Formats: sequence, structure tokens, C-alpha cells
Amino acid sequence: MANVLKLLNVGTKIIGVGRNYAAHAKELGNAVPKEPVLFLKPTSSYLSNGGTIEIPHPLDSLHHEVELAVVIGSKARDVAEAAAMDYVGGYALALDMTAREIQATAKSAGLPWTVAKGQDTFTPISAVLPKSAIQDPDNLELWLKVDNEIRQKGSTSDMIFKLPFLISHISSFMTLMEGDVILTGTPEGVGPVKAGQKITAGITGFIDVQFDVQKRQRRTTI
Amino acid sequence: MANVLKLLNVGTKIIGVGRNYAAHAKELGNAVPKEPVLFLKPTSSYLSNGGTIEIPHPLDSLHHEVELAVVIGSKARDVAEAAAMDYVGGYALALDMTAREIQATAKSAGLPWTVAKGQDTFTPISAVLPKSAIQDPDNLELWLKVDNEIRQKGSTSDMIFKLPFLISHISSFMTLMEGDVILTGTPEGVGPVKAGQKITAGITGFIDVQFDVQKRQRRTTI
Ligand SMILES: [Mg+2]
Ligand SMILES: [Mg+2]
Ligand SMILES: [Mg+2]
Repeated sequence: MANVLKLLNVGTKIIGVGRNYAAHAKELGNAVPKEPVLFLKPTSSYLSNGGTIEIPHPLDSLHHEVELAVVIGSKARDVAEAAAMDYVGGYALALDMTAREIQATAKSAGLPWTVAKGQDTFTPISAVLPKSAIQDPDNLELWLKVDNEIRQKGSTSDMIFKLPFLISHISSFMTLMEGDVILTGTPEGVGPVKAGQKITAGITGFIDVQFDVQKRQRRTTI
Repeated sequence: MANVLKLLNVGTKIIGVGRNYAAHAKELGNAVPKEPVLFLKPTSSYLSNGGTIEIPHPLDSLHHEVELAVVIGSKARDVAEAAAMDYVGGYALALDMTAREIQATAKSAGLPWTVAKGQDTFTPISAVLPKSAIQDPDNLELWLKVDNEIRQKGSTSDMIFKLPFLISHISSFMTLMEGDVILTGTPEGVGPVKAGQKITAGITGFIDVQFDVQKRQRRTTI
């Protein structure tokens, strides 16, 4: 396994899990799913702690979703639930930034969420903690503030689909590679963040991150 | 730029373009889009020439979609159309294998196409030809046979959105990295392929590939 700090550099995909907390599924008017809702984000959307989240033109805001990120430590395919945690290399705290209006339009047209979820800076993420640092990933408090207002506070104990099931399930469709990341879903309280605001977030007792939010400056002259 | 043969090994994403040929959009009952329909496939879905496409349980068939793959040669962000072709490193012939029933269910539920498009072996791809080998990528004949029956034959001249526009457009949302691949859409004639059949496909005068099709053997005991 690569050094835990290097894992994100060698990974080639981010698999997002949607609607994995019942209270969040409800707040967006969605049914609680019978199996995990899966989507992909590109690794080009990562943003390191301290960076600036960019709101692309012509959006006014992006939604924050605070999530536990599971970082895969070694190649996993058709992994049984009982063995699934052996393939975890570490954990991180990630934000699954989402252009909610673009996503809503895509959903009603039956189209993918790529532009809503996959733009540069849409996956702010902390450094990776080694697996050994977190004894009980099923009982972590996730929190997120916008400026000084608490917006999200939830526990990974409320996940509908737990980590061993998610790893086993995803690995039945696609090989998970070293450094790949599973974003395990967000608790309730998602909402918009605007240019000039600051997001702080964390896993209580383990990780703190902060990100500025600005309008994206388009750099090209066409 | 990495050696052209190594490009696929360093890439971290595959961006699919849906409905980029009017006749294909129509055959699936879809409107011709006003802007490109974009989706992501993981690089874990690649299959090299000569390999075996696996139909996962409980599917009976997969759909073949023959496509021109554009392989990015260097990092591209906010690239103008006029400069876009400078970022191309090469071309390949790819199949965008699609579990059409899963995709149809996802579309009607407003959900992503990840499981329909992203499974292992769902992106069979040829070796990469250097950009210099193909003078006119807008006038290539793509073809695909199942056993001895011709199923798809089309010209890249019929693409709705041309390569410079696609590269510019995608790079306005996300940084294209060296080795990333754009699947530029499929001409009409998509259809099912079943276990025991053989797919041959190519770009006339440039590339030929072949793939066997089998039922996937699930390797785990849970
Ligand atoms: Mg990827
Ligand atoms: Mg999310
Ligand atoms: Mg396609």
C-alpha cells in the first residue's frame, strides 16, 4: 500500500453514494433507496484543505454536503462484506459540493449528474488518516459550519448502507483501486454556500478543515 | 507528454458524450441535445484489444456503442476551441458498452448511469494511435460487427458536437489530464450482444479490434 498521505494521488476514481442518510433523502424529497445510489466524480475535482471552492458562472451558490470519505488501500473486486474492511487504507473528511439546480434539471431529464457534481474544486478533502487512527467508523460525528452557523451535524451511525456493504456492493460492479475514494453520503442540513463565505467542517475529535468560497474567474479568452 | 502507448495508463477519467449523432439519439427515442450530454466512466472499465467483455449477472445482454476515443495529451483547462486540438495526444477506437435496461431504469428514476456504463470490461479500447497518424478526425468511418453481421457503420462527420467544441466545453467544467479519454458518442445501430458472440470493430484504414463476449463468473464466495 502506498504511504497513506499519497493515497489520493494514486487513486483514479471517486464513487459517490447518494441518499445514504434517511433524513437527508427526505429533505430533498427523495425516497429512501432500496440499494445505494452510485455516481462518479473525477479526481480532478479534489481540493486540498485550505483551498478555495469555486462557484462557476452562472451559478449563484453551491450546496455543501459533508461526508465521510473511505480511502481504498488495495485493489478490491467482488469482496465479501466480512472481508471488506481489510481493503480500507484510511479515512478523510470530504465535501461533495453539488450544483443543486443543475442536478435538479439533470434528474428531471433523466441525465447524469456529471456537471452538477464533477467540476474542479467540487470535492474538497482533508488529508487522509490511516485506518488505525479511527477505531469505529460507524460512530463518527460529522459537522459543517458556514461562517459561524452550524449547518450539518450528524453521525455515521445513521448511514442506511454501512461501509462493509458499500465496499462489497461497489466492488461487485467495478474494481476498486488503491487510492480510490468512496464518499459515503451526507446527513441532513445541506444548503447553499455563496461567494465570500467560509466553510469549516470536520469529524469531531479527528479532523478539521476549512475552505473559502469564491466566484470562479474564467481564465480563457475564447 | 507520456509515450502515446502509455497514455491510457496515466489517465484518470473517461468522459462519455451521449447523443452526439442525431440518428442514434432518434433510435433511442431521445431529443437531439442542445448541449453535449456528459457522463463519466471509471478507468477500471478498460479492456484491451483481444479481451473478453463480461455480461454481469442477471443481465442477458449488453448494448454495443462504437465510438472514436480522443486521448488527451496534456493538461487542459478552459481551452478555447481554436486551440483545443493542441491538447489531443492521440486517438483510439472504443466501445461504450451499456447495460441498456439498467440505464433505462436509471433514466426514468432521475439517477446516474454509473452501474449501466461503469462496470469492469465496459470500455473495450484499442491501442492509442498518435495524433499525427490521423489527419482528419472529422471524417473517419467507424464500424462494428457482431459475429459476421454489420451492426454499426457511421462517419465522424455526422457528429453534432465536433472535437474542438467538446474539448473546449468539457475543459470549462473540469481539468482534462494527460491520458484522460473522451468517448465522442456513437452512430446509429446500437444493439444487444450476448454471451458466445464476438465483436469486431474498427476505424476503416486505421484500427481493427476484436472482443469475445461471455457471461461474467462471479468470483467471490460471500
Ligand atoms: Mg475517474
Ligand atoms: Mg453527497
Ligand atoms: Mg456512448
